[in-house]
Amino acid sequence: MTLFFTESDNVTSYGYAIDKVYEVGQSKFQSYKVFETLKFGKMLVLDDVVMLTEKDEFVYHEMLAHIPALLSKSLDNVLVIGGGDGGTVRELLKHPNCGQITLCEIDAKVIELSKKYFPQVAIGFENPKVNELVADGIEFVKNSADKTYDLVIVDSSDPIGPGVGLFTEAFYADCKRLIKSGGCLAAQTESPWFEGSVIQKIYQNISKNFSYTKPYLGTVPTYPMGSWTWTVASEENLSLPSDLKKKISSLGVLNYLNADIAKACFALPEFYKKKLV
Amino acid sequence: MTLFFTESDNVTSYGYAIDKVYEVGQSKFQSYKVFETLKFGKMLVLDDVVMLTEKDEFVYHEMLAHIPALLSKSLDNVLVIGGGDGGTVRELLKHPNCGQITLCEIDAKVIELSKKYFPQVAIGFENPKVNELVADGIEFVKNSADKTYDLVIVDSSDPIGPGVGLFTEAFYADCKRLIKSGGCLAAQTESPWFEGSVIQKIYQNISKNFSYTKPYLGTVPTYPMGSWTWTVASEENLSLPSDLKKKISSLGVLNYLNADIAKACFALPEFYKKKLV
Repeated sequence: MTLFFTESDNVTSYGYAIDKVYEVGQSKFQSYKVFETLKFGKMLVLDDVVMLTEKDEFVYHEMLAHIPALLSKSLDNVLVIGGGDGGTVRELLKHPNCGQITLCEIDAKVIELSKKYFPQVAIGFENPKVNELVADGIEFVKNSADKTYDLVIVDSSDPIGPGVGLFTEAFYADCKRLIKSGGCLAAQTESPWFEGSVIQKIYQNISKNFSYTKPYLGTVPTYPMGSWTWTVASEENLSLPSDLKKKISSLGVLNYLNADIAKACFALPEFYKKKLV
Repeated sequence: MTLFFTESDNVTSYGYAIDKVYEVGQSKFQSYKVFETLKFGKMLVLDDVVMLTEKDEFVYHEMLAHIPALLSKSLDNVLVIGGGDGGTVRELLKHPNCGQITLCEIDAKVIELSKKYFPQVAIGFENPKVNELVADGIEFVKNSADKTYDLVIVDSSDPIGPGVGLFTEAFYADCKRLIKSGGCLAAQTESPWFEGSVIQKIYQNISKNFSYTKPYLGTVPTYPMGSWTWTVASEENLSLPSDLKKKISSLGVLNYLNADIAKACFALPEFYKKKLV
Protein backbone atom coordinates (compact mmCIF):
# COMPACT_ATOMS: atom_id res chain seq x y z
CA MET A 1 0.00 0.00 0.00
CA THR A 2 1.28 3.47 -0.92
CA LEU A 3 0.12 6.50 1.05
CA PHE A 4 -0.28 9.79 -0.79
CA PHE A 5 -0.43 13.31 0.55
CA THR A 6 -2.66 15.29 -1.80
CA GLU A 7 -2.87 19.06 -2.13
CA SER A 8 -6.21 19.97 -3.70
CA ASP A 9 -8.34 23.00 -4.47
CA ASN A 10 -11.26 20.75 -5.51
CA VAL A 11 -10.64 21.23 -9.25
CA THR A 12 -7.06 19.98 -9.40
CA SER A 13 -5.02 17.79 -7.07
CA TYR A 14 -1.30 17.17 -6.70
CA GLY A 15 -0.36 13.97 -4.92
CA TYR A 16 2.95 12.78 -3.51
CA ALA A 17 3.62 9.20 -2.40
CA ILE A 18 4.97 9.24 1.11
CA ASP A 19 7.30 6.90 2.89
CA LYS A 20 7.10 8.31 6.37
CA VAL A 21 5.13 10.86 8.38
CA TYR A 22 7.58 12.70 10.62
CA GLU A 23 5.28 15.13 12.34
CA VAL A 24 1.73 16.45 12.09
CA GLY A 25 0.31 19.23 14.24
CA GLN A 26 -1.15 22.67 14.64
CA SER A 27 0.79 25.82 15.50
CA LYS A 28 -0.78 29.05 16.73
CA PHE A 29 -1.20 30.09 13.08
CA GLN A 30 -1.53 27.06 10.85
CA SER A 31 -1.50 23.29 10.55
CA TYR A 32 1.80 21.64 9.68
CA LYS A 33 2.95 18.28 8.34
CA VAL A 34 6.39 16.94 7.58
CA PHE A 35 6.65 13.94 5.26
CA GLU A 36 9.28 11.87 3.55
CA THR A 37 8.11 11.70 -0.07
CA LEU A 38 9.35 9.14 -2.57
CA LYS A 39 9.95 11.68 -5.32
CA PHE A 40 10.98 14.94 -3.67
CA GLY A 41 12.62 13.90 -0.38
CA LYS A 42 11.38 15.60 2.78
CA MET A 43 8.37 17.88 2.37
CA LEU A 44 6.96 20.63 4.60
CA VAL A 45 3.22 21.25 4.29
CA LEU A 46 1.45 24.24 5.90
CA ASP A 47 -2.37 24.41 5.95
CA ASP A 48 -2.33 21.48 3.51
CA VAL A 49 -0.29 23.39 0.93
CA VAL A 50 3.22 22.24 -0.03
CA MET A 51 5.72 24.84 1.21
CA LEU A 52 8.98 23.19 0.28
CA THR A 53 10.63 19.92 -0.58
CA GLU A 54 14.29 18.97 -0.33
CA LYS A 55 14.58 18.26 -4.05
CA ASP A 56 13.16 21.43 -5.59
CA GLU A 57 13.36 24.18 -2.93
CA PHE A 58 16.49 25.48 -4.65
CA VAL A 59 14.48 27.02 -7.48
CA TYR A 60 12.21 29.11 -5.29
CA HIS A 61 14.98 30.27 -2.98
CA GLU A 62 17.58 31.02 -5.64
CA MET A 63 15.07 33.01 -7.67
CA LEU A 64 13.56 34.94 -4.76
CA ALA A 65 16.95 35.84 -3.24
CA HIS A 66 19.46 36.29 -6.06
CA ILE A 67 17.50 38.28 -8.62
CA PRO A 68 16.82 41.24 -6.27
CA ALA A 69 20.22 40.85 -4.61
CA LEU A 70 21.86 41.22 -8.06
CA LEU A 71 19.71 44.27 -8.81
CA SER A 72 20.17 46.10 -5.47
CA LYS A 73 22.96 48.64 -5.36
CA SER A 74 24.07 47.38 -1.98
CA LEU A 75 23.19 44.65 0.53
CA ASP A 76 24.37 46.18 3.78
CA ASN A 77 21.05 45.63 5.50
CA VAL A 78 18.42 43.18 4.31
CA LEU A 79 14.94 42.37 5.64
CA VAL A 80 13.16 39.09 4.98
CA ILE A 81 9.46 38.94 5.92
CA GLY A 82 8.33 35.33 6.36
CA GLY A 83 10.85 32.85 5.02
CA GLY A 84 11.00 30.95 8.31
CA ASP A 85 12.45 27.88 6.65
CA GLY A 86 15.69 29.82 6.14
CA GLY A 87 16.19 29.07 2.44
CA THR A 88 16.09 32.69 1.31
CA VAL A 89 18.58 33.69 4.02
CA ARG A 90 20.87 30.83 3.00
CA GLU A 91 20.95 32.15 -0.56
CA LEU A 92 21.40 35.82 0.43
CA LEU A 93 24.44 34.88 2.52
CA LYS A 94 26.17 33.63 -0.64
CA HIS A 95 26.61 37.27 -1.74
CA PRO A 96 30.05 38.46 -0.66
CA ASN A 97 28.63 41.96 -0.04
CA CYS A 98 25.73 40.77 2.13
CA GLY A 99 25.68 42.53 5.50
CA GLN A 100 23.09 42.13 8.24
CA ILE A 101 19.89 40.16 7.57
CA THR A 102 16.79 40.53 9.73
CA LEU A 103 14.32 37.68 9.30
CA CYS A 104 10.81 38.30 10.64
CA GLU A 105 8.72 35.12 10.72
CA ILE A 106 5.32 35.07 12.42
CA ASP A 107 5.34 31.37 13.24
CA ALA A 108 8.14 30.04 15.46
CA LYS A 109 7.04 26.51 14.60
CA VAL A 110 8.13 26.95 10.96
CA ILE A 111 11.66 27.89 12.05
CA GLU A 112 11.72 24.99 14.52
CA LEU A 113 10.54 22.43 11.93
CA SER A 114 13.03 23.67 9.37
CA LYS A 115 15.95 23.44 11.79
CA LYS A 116 14.88 19.93 12.79
CA TYR A 117 14.02 18.40 9.41
CA PHE A 118 15.67 20.63 6.78
CA PRO A 119 19.08 21.48 8.23
CA GLN A 120 20.47 22.24 4.75
CA VAL A 121 17.72 24.84 4.26
CA ALA A 122 17.90 26.30 7.79
CA ILE A 123 21.69 26.44 7.71
CA GLY A 124 21.75 30.24 7.33
CA PHE A 125 20.30 30.74 10.82
CA GLU A 126 23.69 29.76 12.27
CA ASN A 127 25.37 32.76 10.63
CA PRO A 128 26.00 35.70 13.03
CA LYS A 129 24.88 38.14 10.32
CA VAL A 130 21.33 36.83 10.75
CA ASN A 131 18.94 38.32 13.27
CA GLU A 132 15.99 35.95 13.66
CA LEU A 133 12.75 37.49 14.98
CA VAL A 134 9.45 35.82 15.68
CA ALA A 135 6.95 38.59 14.99
CA ASP A 136 4.14 39.70 12.71
CA GLY A 137 5.72 41.09 9.54
CA ILE A 138 2.89 43.58 9.03
CA GLU A 139 3.45 45.13 12.46
CA PHE A 140 7.21 44.96 12.03
CA VAL A 141 7.26 46.99 8.82
CA LYS A 142 4.70 49.47 10.25
CA ASN A 143 7.03 50.18 13.15
CA SER A 144 10.32 50.26 11.26
CA ALA A 145 12.17 53.46 10.42
CA ASP A 146 12.29 54.94 6.91
CA LYS A 147 15.12 54.01 4.57
CA THR A 148 16.55 51.27 6.77
CA TYR A 149 17.02 48.42 4.29
CA ASP A 150 18.73 47.97 0.93
CA LEU A 151 16.49 45.06 0.11
CA VAL A 152 13.15 43.84 1.51
CA ILE A 153 12.10 40.32 0.55
CA VAL A 154 8.55 39.08 1.14
CA ASP A 155 8.82 35.31 1.40
CA SER A 156 5.22 34.57 2.26
CA SER A 157 2.76 31.72 1.91
CA ASP A 158 -0.34 32.16 -0.30
CA PRO A 159 -2.76 35.09 0.08
CA ILE A 160 -5.02 33.05 2.37
CA GLY A 161 -4.46 32.26 6.08
CA PRO A 162 -1.55 33.97 7.85
CA GLY A 163 -0.11 35.27 4.56
CA VAL A 164 -3.09 37.37 3.45
CA GLY A 165 -1.88 40.71 4.88
CA LEU A 166 1.43 40.36 3.04
CA PHE A 167 -0.21 41.07 -0.34
CA THR A 168 -2.04 44.34 0.41
CA GLU A 169 -1.34 47.80 -0.98
CA ALA A 170 -0.82 49.13 2.57
CA PHE A 171 1.76 46.47 3.38
CA TYR A 172 3.75 47.15 0.21
CA ALA A 173 3.57 50.90 0.99
CA ASP A 174 5.21 50.23 4.35
CA CYS A 175 7.86 48.07 2.70
CA LYS A 176 8.61 50.85 0.25
CA ARG A 177 9.08 53.36 3.07
CA LEU A 178 11.82 51.18 4.59
CA ILE A 179 13.85 50.85 1.40
CA LYS A 180 16.95 52.98 0.87
CA SER A 181 17.65 54.71 -2.42
CA GLY A 182 18.94 52.22 -5.00
CA GLY A 183 17.27 49.34 -3.18
CA CYS A 184 14.28 47.18 -4.01
CA LEU A 185 11.45 44.98 -2.87
CA ALA A 186 11.08 41.38 -3.98
CA ALA A 187 8.05 39.22 -3.30
CA GLN A 188 6.70 35.84 -4.27
CA THR A 189 3.65 36.55 -6.42
CA GLU A 190 2.03 33.15 -7.03
CA SER A 191 1.54 31.00 -10.13
CA PRO A 192 1.14 32.71 -13.50
CA TRP A 193 -1.66 30.21 -14.11
CA PHE A 194 -3.75 31.33 -11.11
CA GLU A 195 -6.97 33.22 -11.74
CA GLY A 196 -6.44 36.55 -13.48
CA SER A 197 -8.17 38.60 -10.79
CA VAL A 198 -5.77 37.32 -8.08
CA ILE A 199 -2.67 37.90 -10.22
CA GLN A 200 -3.82 41.36 -11.31
CA LYS A 201 -4.67 42.48 -7.78
CA ILE A 202 -1.23 41.53 -6.41
CA TYR A 203 0.50 43.24 -9.33
CA GLN A 204 -1.59 46.39 -8.88
CA ASN A 205 -0.98 46.50 -5.12
CA ILE A 206 2.75 46.46 -5.75
CA SER A 207 2.82 48.74 -8.80
CA LYS A 208 0.71 51.45 -7.12
CA ASN A 209 3.62 51.89 -4.73
CA PHE A 210 6.66 51.63 -6.99
CA SER A 211 7.81 53.28 -10.20
CA TYR A 212 9.14 49.99 -11.62
CA THR A 213 7.41 46.64 -11.08
CA LYS A 214 8.91 43.65 -12.84
CA PRO A 215 7.52 40.13 -12.46
CA TYR A 216 9.76 37.20 -13.33
CA LEU A 217 9.21 33.46 -13.78
CA GLY A 218 10.63 30.07 -12.93
CA THR A 219 9.63 26.41 -12.80
CA VAL A 220 8.79 24.88 -9.39
CA PRO A 221 7.41 21.35 -9.83
CA THR A 222 5.81 21.03 -6.37
CA TYR A 223 3.85 24.29 -6.60
CA PRO A 224 0.42 24.08 -8.28
CA MET A 225 0.71 24.00 -12.07
CA GLY A 226 4.49 23.87 -11.87
CA SER A 227 5.61 27.40 -12.52
CA TRP A 228 5.88 30.39 -10.27
CA THR A 229 6.37 34.15 -10.34
CA TRP A 230 8.24 36.59 -8.16
CA THR A 231 8.22 40.35 -8.56
CA VAL A 232 10.90 42.94 -8.01
CA ALA A 233 9.84 46.55 -7.48
CA SER A 234 11.89 49.71 -7.09
CA GLU A 235 11.93 53.49 -7.49
CA GLU A 236 14.95 53.48 -9.78
CA ASN A 237 15.01 51.41 -12.96
CA LEU A 238 17.55 48.87 -11.69
CA SER A 239 19.59 46.76 -14.11
CA LEU A 240 21.48 43.51 -13.73
CA PRO A 241 25.20 44.20 -13.23
CA SER A 242 27.37 44.44 -16.33
CA ASP A 243 29.66 41.74 -14.85
CA LEU A 244 26.66 39.44 -14.30
CA LYS A 245 28.47 36.18 -15.11
CA LYS A 246 31.30 37.01 -12.73
CA LYS A 247 28.88 38.07 -9.99
CA ILE A 248 26.90 34.86 -10.32
CA SER A 249 29.97 32.66 -10.32
CA SER A 250 31.08 34.39 -7.09
CA LEU A 251 27.95 32.94 -5.43
CA GLY A 252 29.29 29.38 -5.60
CA VAL A 253 27.33 26.40 -6.88
CA LEU A 254 23.77 27.24 -7.93
CA ASN A 255 21.33 24.67 -9.18
CA TYR A 256 18.88 26.86 -11.10
CA LEU A 257 20.18 30.35 -11.72
CA ASN A 258 22.85 31.33 -14.23
CA ALA A 259 23.44 34.51 -16.22
CA ASP A 260 21.14 33.41 -19.07
CA ILE A 261 18.29 32.63 -16.67
CA ALA A 262 18.78 35.90 -14.76
CA LYS A 263 18.00 37.76 -17.97
CA ALA A 264 15.47 35.33 -19.47
CA CYS A 265 13.28 35.10 -16.35
CA PHE A 266 11.86 38.57 -17.05
CA ALA A 267 10.36 37.45 -20.39
CA LEU A 268 6.63 37.09 -19.73
CA PRO A 269 4.33 34.85 -21.78
CA GLU A 270 1.39 36.58 -23.47
CA PHE A 271 -1.32 34.92 -21.34
CA TYR A 272 0.36 36.19 -18.17
CA LYS A 273 0.98 39.72 -19.46
CA LYS A 274 -2.73 39.96 -20.28
CA LYS A 275 -3.57 39.13 -16.65
CA LEU A 276 -1.49 42.00 -15.30
CA VAL A 277 -3.30 44.81 -17.12
CA MET B 1 -19.53 13.98 -5.25
CA THR B 2 -16.69 15.14 -7.51
CA LEU B 3 -15.04 12.65 -9.86
CA PHE B 4 -11.32 13.06 -10.55
CA PHE B 5 -9.23 11.69 -13.37
CA THR B 6 -5.75 11.10 -11.98
CA GLU B 7 -2.53 10.67 -13.93
CA SER B 8 0.00 8.88 -11.77
CA ASP B 9 3.44 7.30 -11.98
CA ASN B 10 3.08 5.88 -8.43
CA VAL B 11 5.29 8.55 -6.83
CA THR B 12 3.34 11.63 -7.94
CA SER B 13 -0.24 12.11 -9.10
CA TYR B 14 -2.00 14.88 -10.96
CA GLY B 15 -5.77 14.96 -10.59
CA TYR B 16 -8.43 16.87 -12.48
CA ALA B 17 -12.04 17.17 -11.35
CA ILE B 18 -14.31 16.10 -14.17
CA ASP B 19 -17.80 17.16 -15.06
CA LYS B 20 -18.48 14.75 -17.86
CA VAL B 21 -17.00 11.67 -19.51
CA TYR B 22 -17.48 12.03 -23.26
CA GLU B 23 -15.81 8.89 -24.49
CA VAL B 24 -13.62 6.07 -23.22
CA GLY B 25 -12.17 3.34 -25.40
CA GLN B 26 -9.25 1.49 -26.90
CA SER B 27 -7.79 2.12 -30.34
CA LYS B 28 -5.43 -0.24 -32.15
CA PHE B 29 -2.52 1.51 -30.39
CA GLN B 30 -3.63 2.96 -27.08
CA SER B 31 -6.46 3.61 -24.68
CA TYR B 32 -8.24 6.95 -24.95
CA LYS B 33 -10.49 9.07 -22.77
CA VAL B 34 -12.15 12.41 -23.39
CA PHE B 35 -13.35 14.37 -20.34
CA GLU B 36 -14.81 17.73 -19.52
CA THR B 37 -12.66 19.01 -16.65
CA LEU B 38 -13.69 21.81 -14.32
CA LYS B 39 -10.36 23.62 -14.56
CA PHE B 40 -8.98 23.05 -18.06
CA GLY B 41 -12.05 22.48 -20.22
CA LYS B 42 -12.06 19.41 -22.47
CA MET B 43 -9.17 17.00 -21.95
CA LEU B 44 -7.78 14.20 -24.16
CA VAL B 45 -6.04 11.36 -22.33
CA LEU B 46 -4.04 8.63 -24.10
CA ASP B 47 -2.82 5.57 -22.18
CA ASP B 48 -3.83 7.42 -19.00
CA VAL B 49 -1.50 10.34 -19.74
CA VAL B 50 -2.93 13.83 -20.39
CA MET B 51 -2.28 14.74 -24.03
CA LEU B 52 -4.02 18.08 -24.25
CA THR B 53 -6.63 20.30 -22.68
CA GLU B 54 -8.57 23.16 -24.24
CA LYS B 55 -7.20 25.71 -21.77
CA ASP B 56 -3.45 25.13 -22.01
CA GLU B 57 -2.78 23.36 -25.33
CA PHE B 58 -1.74 26.71 -26.79
CA VAL B 59 1.60 26.63 -24.96
CA TYR B 60 2.73 23.26 -26.28
CA HIS B 61 1.59 23.91 -29.84
CA GLU B 62 2.86 27.48 -30.12
CA MET B 63 6.27 26.48 -28.77
CA LEU B 64 6.65 23.29 -30.82
CA ALA B 65 5.56 24.95 -34.09
CA HIS B 66 6.72 28.57 -34.08
CA ILE B 67 10.24 28.33 -32.69
CA PRO B 68 11.51 26.02 -35.48
CA ALA B 69 9.33 27.75 -38.07
CA LEU B 70 10.99 31.08 -37.15
CA LEU B 71 14.42 29.46 -37.38
CA SER B 72 13.96 27.60 -40.68
CA LYS B 73 15.07 29.42 -43.79
CA SER B 74 11.93 28.40 -45.62
CA LEU B 75 8.69 26.53 -44.98
CA ASP B 76 7.80 25.32 -48.46
CA ASN B 77 7.40 21.73 -47.35
CA VAL B 78 6.88 20.67 -43.74
CA LEU B 79 6.52 17.22 -42.17
CA VAL B 80 4.79 16.60 -38.84
CA ILE B 81 5.24 13.14 -37.31
CA GLY B 82 2.47 12.43 -34.78
CA GLY B 83 0.49 15.52 -33.85
CA GLY B 84 -2.81 13.87 -34.73
CA ASP B 85 -4.78 16.41 -32.69
CA GLY B 86 -3.89 19.03 -35.33
CA GLY B 87 -2.64 21.76 -32.95
CA THR B 88 0.86 21.91 -34.42
CA VAL B 89 -0.53 22.11 -37.96
CA ARG B 90 -2.92 24.89 -36.90
CA GLU B 91 0.04 26.95 -35.62
CA LEU B 92 2.26 26.25 -38.66
CA LEU B 93 -0.48 27.50 -40.97
CA LYS B 94 -0.25 30.93 -39.31
CA HIS B 95 3.08 31.48 -41.07
CA PRO B 96 2.43 33.41 -44.30
CA ASN B 97 5.28 31.48 -45.99
CA CYS B 98 4.01 28.03 -44.97
CA GLY B 99 3.61 25.75 -47.99
CA GLN B 100 2.57 22.10 -47.95
CA ILE B 101 2.29 20.23 -44.65
CA THR B 102 2.32 16.45 -44.46
CA LEU B 103 1.02 15.08 -41.16
CA CYS B 104 1.80 11.43 -40.43
CA GLU B 105 -0.15 10.14 -37.41
CA ILE B 106 -0.12 6.43 -36.55
CA ASP B 107 -3.50 6.39 -34.80
CA ALA B 108 -6.56 7.44 -36.83
CA LYS B 109 -8.56 7.51 -33.61
CA VAL B 110 -6.57 10.51 -32.32
CA ILE B 111 -7.46 12.52 -35.44
CA GLU B 112 -11.09 11.44 -35.18
CA LEU B 113 -11.36 12.39 -31.49
CA SER B 114 -9.73 15.75 -32.07
CA LYS B 115 -12.05 16.60 -34.94
CA LYS B 116 -15.05 15.59 -32.84
CA TYR B 117 -14.20 17.14 -29.46
CA PHE B 118 -11.50 19.77 -30.15
CA PRO B 119 -12.60 21.47 -33.38
CA GLN B 120 -10.52 24.58 -32.54
CA VAL B 121 -7.40 22.36 -32.32
CA ALA B 122 -8.21 20.20 -35.36
CA ILE B 123 -9.15 23.23 -37.48
CA GLY B 124 -5.96 23.04 -39.55
CA PHE B 125 -7.02 19.73 -41.11
CA GLU B 126 -9.56 21.65 -43.22
CA ASN B 127 -6.79 23.60 -44.98
CA PRO B 128 -5.96 22.30 -48.49
CA LYS B 129 -2.23 22.75 -47.75
CA VAL B 130 -2.48 19.85 -45.28
CA ASN B 131 -1.97 16.27 -46.39
CA GLU B 132 -3.19 14.00 -43.59
CA LEU B 133 -1.75 10.47 -43.53
CA VAL B 134 -2.49 7.63 -41.15
CA ALA B 135 0.81 5.74 -41.06
CA ASP B 136 3.74 4.75 -38.88
CA GLY B 137 6.08 7.75 -38.70
CA ILE B 138 9.15 5.53 -38.36
CA GLU B 139 8.35 3.72 -41.60
CA PHE B 140 7.37 6.96 -43.30
CA VAL B 141 10.69 8.69 -42.65
CA LYS B 142 12.61 5.51 -43.59
CA ASN B 143 10.94 5.50 -46.99
CA SER B 144 11.08 9.23 -47.70
CA ALA B 145 13.54 10.81 -50.15
CA ASP B 146 16.58 12.82 -49.04
CA LYS B 147 16.25 16.60 -48.62
CA THR B 148 12.47 16.72 -49.05
CA TYR B 149 11.43 18.94 -46.13
CA ASP B 150 12.39 22.37 -44.80
CA LEU B 151 11.18 21.44 -41.35
CA VAL B 152 10.44 18.12 -39.65
CA ILE B 153 8.47 18.29 -36.39
CA VAL B 154 8.20 15.28 -34.09
CA ASP B 155 5.00 15.81 -32.11
CA SER B 156 4.99 12.53 -30.22
CA SER B 157 3.66 11.15 -26.98
CA ASP B 158 6.08 9.98 -24.27
CA PRO B 159 8.91 7.48 -24.94
CA ILE B 160 6.71 4.58 -23.84
CA GLY B 161 3.93 2.88 -25.84
CA PRO B 162 3.46 3.91 -29.50
CA GLY B 163 5.86 6.86 -29.13
CA VAL B 164 8.99 4.92 -28.12
CA GLY B 165 10.48 4.61 -31.62
CA LEU B 166 10.25 8.37 -32.10
CA PHE B 167 13.10 9.03 -29.65
CA THR B 168 15.82 6.75 -31.08
CA GLU B 169 19.10 7.72 -32.71
CA ALA B 170 18.09 5.82 -35.87
CA PHE B 171 14.80 7.69 -36.16
CA TYR B 172 16.47 11.08 -35.77
CA ALA B 173 19.06 10.02 -38.39
CA ASP B 174 16.25 9.36 -40.85
CA CYS B 175 14.66 12.71 -40.02
CA LYS B 176 17.97 14.45 -40.66
CA ARG B 177 18.30 12.82 -44.07
CA LEU B 178 14.96 14.32 -45.14
CA ILE B 179 15.83 17.89 -44.18
CA LYS B 180 16.90 20.42 -46.82
CA SER B 181 19.84 22.73 -46.30
CA GLY B 182 18.88 25.61 -43.98
CA GLY B 183 16.10 23.55 -42.42
CA CYS B 184 15.73 21.93 -39.02
CA LEU B 185 14.19 19.28 -36.84
CA ALA B 186 12.05 20.08 -33.81
CA ALA B 187 10.85 17.55 -31.28
CA GLN B 188 9.08 17.48 -27.94
CA THR B 189 11.70 16.28 -25.47
CA GLU B 190 9.81 15.77 -22.19
CA SER B 191 9.93 17.52 -18.80
CA PRO B 192 13.23 19.03 -17.64
CA TRP B 193 12.38 17.48 -14.25
CA PHE B 194 12.25 13.90 -15.57
CA GLU B 195 15.01 11.50 -14.60
CA GLY B 196 18.43 12.56 -15.87
CA SER B 197 19.11 9.34 -17.75
CA VAL B 198 15.94 9.74 -19.86
CA ILE B 199 16.65 13.41 -20.62
CA GLN B 200 20.30 12.75 -21.44
CA LYS B 201 19.53 9.82 -23.73
CA ILE B 202 17.04 11.81 -25.82
CA TYR B 203 19.47 14.72 -26.06
CA GLN B 204 22.32 12.43 -27.08
CA ASN B 205 20.21 10.66 -29.69
CA ILE B 206 19.44 13.99 -31.32
CA SER B 207 22.86 15.59 -30.94
CA LYS B 208 24.70 12.57 -32.39
CA ASN B 209 22.92 13.39 -35.65
CA PHE B 210 23.07 17.17 -35.81
CA SER B 211 25.76 19.82 -35.54
CA TYR B 212 23.54 22.12 -33.44
CA THR B 213 21.09 20.84 -30.82
CA LYS B 214 19.24 23.44 -28.79
CA PRO B 215 16.67 22.54 -26.15
CA TYR B 216 14.18 25.18 -25.09
CA LEU B 217 11.62 25.47 -22.28
CA GLY B 218 8.08 26.49 -21.51
CA THR B 219 5.40 26.07 -18.84
CA VAL B 220 2.59 23.54 -19.48
CA PRO B 221 0.44 23.15 -16.35
CA THR B 222 -1.20 19.84 -17.31
CA TYR B 223 2.05 18.05 -18.09
CA PRO B 224 3.81 16.37 -15.13
CA MET B 225 5.70 18.88 -12.99
CA GLY B 226 4.37 21.77 -15.07
CA SER B 227 7.20 22.61 -17.43
CA TRP B 228 8.26 21.12 -20.71
CA THR B 229 11.13 21.07 -23.19
CA TRP B 230 11.34 20.94 -26.95
CA THR B 231 14.53 20.71 -28.96
CA VAL B 232 15.51 22.18 -32.29
CA ALA B 233 18.38 20.59 -34.20
CA SER B 234 20.09 21.60 -37.42
CA GLU B 235 23.27 21.41 -39.49
CA GLU B 236 23.62 25.19 -39.77
CA ASN B 237 23.68 27.40 -36.69
CA LEU B 238 20.26 28.94 -37.28
CA SER B 239 19.29 32.27 -35.70
CA LEU B 240 15.98 33.91 -35.00
CA PRO B 241 15.16 36.46 -37.73
CA SER B 242 16.37 40.03 -37.21
CA ASP B 243 12.79 41.25 -37.70
CA LEU B 244 11.55 38.82 -35.02
CA LYS B 245 8.87 41.14 -33.57
CA LYS B 246 7.43 41.84 -36.99
CA LYS B 247 7.50 38.14 -37.94
CA ILE B 248 5.72 37.17 -34.73
CA SER B 249 3.08 39.86 -35.08
CA SER B 250 2.38 38.59 -38.63
CA LEU B 251 1.26 35.29 -37.04
CA GLY B 252 -1.86 36.87 -35.52
CA VAL B 253 -2.95 36.46 -31.91
CA LEU B 254 -0.68 34.18 -29.88
CA ASN B 255 -1.34 33.35 -26.26
CA TYR B 256 2.14 32.31 -25.12
CA LEU B 257 4.86 33.28 -27.56
CA ASN B 258 6.22 36.77 -28.12
CA ALA B 259 9.65 38.05 -29.17
CA ASP B 260 10.97 38.08 -25.58
CA ILE B 261 9.88 34.49 -24.99
CA ALA B 262 11.30 33.33 -28.35
CA LYS B 263 14.74 34.41 -27.16
CA ALA B 264 14.35 33.61 -23.45
CA CYS B 265 13.12 30.04 -23.95
CA PHE B 266 16.66 28.92 -24.86
CA ALA B 267 18.02 29.88 -21.42
CA LEU B 268 18.45 26.58 -19.59
CA PRO B 269 18.46 26.25 -15.78
CA GLU B 270 21.59 24.75 -14.23
CA PHE B 271 19.92 21.52 -13.02
CA TYR B 272 18.72 20.80 -16.56
CA LYS B 273 22.02 21.64 -18.27
CA LYS B 274 23.73 19.17 -15.92
CA LYS B 275 21.36 16.42 -17.09
CA LEU B 276 22.30 16.90 -20.73
CA VAL B 277 26.01 16.22 -20.39
